[in-house]
Amino acid sequence: MKLAYSAASPYVRKVMIVAIEAGLDSKIEKLPMAVRPDQPNAALATDNPLMKVPTLVTDAGDKLFDSRVICAYLDGLNPGAKLIPESGPARWKALSLEALGDGMTDAGLLVRYETALRPKELQWKEWIDGQTKKVMQGLDQLEKDTSVLSGPLNIGQIAVVCGLGWMKFRNVFGDVLATRPKLAAAIAKLEERPSFKATVPQG
Amino acid sequence: MKLAYSAASPYVRKVMIVAIEAGLDSKIEKLPMAVRPDQPNAALATDNPLMKVPTLVTDAGDKLFDSRVICAYLDGLNPGAKLIPESGPARWKALSLEALGDGMTDAGLLVRYETALRPKELQWKEWIDGQTKKVMQGLDQLEKDTSVLSGPLNIGQIAVVCGLGWMKFRNVFGDVLATRPKLAAAIAKLEERPSFKATVPQG
Repeated sequence: MKLAYSAASPYVRKVMIVAIEAGLDSKIEKLPMAVRPDQPNAALATDNPLMKVPTLVTDAGDKLFDSRVICAYLDGLNPGAKLIPESGPARWKALSLEALGDGMTDAGLLVRYETALRPKELQWKEWIDGQTKKVMQGLDQLEKDTSVLSGPLNIGQIAVVCGLGWMKFRNVFGDVLATRPKLAAAIAKLEERPSFKATVPQG
Repeated sequence: MKLAYSAASPYVRKVMIVAIEAGLDSKIEKLPMAVRPDQPNAALATDNPLMKVPTLVTDAGDKLFDSRVICAYLDGLNPGAKLIPESGPARWKALSLEALGDGMTDAGLLVRYETALRPKELQWKEWIDGQTKKVMQGLDQLEKDTSVLSGPLNIGQIAVVCGLGWMKFRNVFGDVLATRPKLAAAIAKLEERPSFKATVPQG
């Protein structure tokens, strides 16, 4: 399998954690890609018109994206404990937590694009505030109920750790865990896992 | 079930089409919500910190989002033909097509937010161009191979129709199907289906 890859991407990290947990990481050839929304990467467009990492080309030549689809595909190949519960309330809770983690990450990315890529004189405060509020409300909900971050590892927990790890790496919102001690402890516990340690963002 | 709803949202439309196909639409109470990324909706935040529609509260009180998760949940309750193939290459093709449709819609939404909500003097051409390119490349790929839009209805086809239907409704990119006749024919055929006719965007 070939994976369009960036060592800084929170979405690529989700895929790599799932691959490691499934024992499949040695079967994945990483193809490093530069991706910026204001500088489209034509090389990536052949496999994914959206020009986003991660994109996985399977051994059969199928082109899979985005991270949710690739993670589900790799989890399906996992002979061990599934990261996406196969049925029942646990499935919908894990997938909604993944959507929360991804949604917070998306909002964080929009804030970073606005503050780090867009020329300063074109920045719009209401936009930054609106996206920031989504992230802060997500953090507050997780602080209020960290139970979703304990129990058997699932894709939702992975998405949350990848999102928060990326925000810290890029210092998008400062130290958001300083005022949220329960969430900080739950994240620190998850980050002890080898698959998380092996994929700390770089770049 | 209660659904945070907007009659203009392409993501809500996905959910409603899946609900109609599953015979579940009469069990869904629609709660109309105003959502704008620069004007956060506090009422929605209780159920979804991201303050986005669609958000589904199940009869058991579980809060499910986003559209992909809700569609998969409703499809799981569908006693008839599944819109998400349960296994094999058909599953990953349908889900990657859903990711393509959703990704084009996300890019289109970012262009609309930029051109219709953001003050004119703060607009950034490179951003608009970069997001537009993702949509156009997606359209070109679909024009090149419309086979993915035929065969039994699946969630990927639904996502593409909802995305393109919304772009037309908001006139984000003009008549993009005029120069893509095969795609136009494939979309027109899908749009004949009662579930699509019943959910044409409004607002």
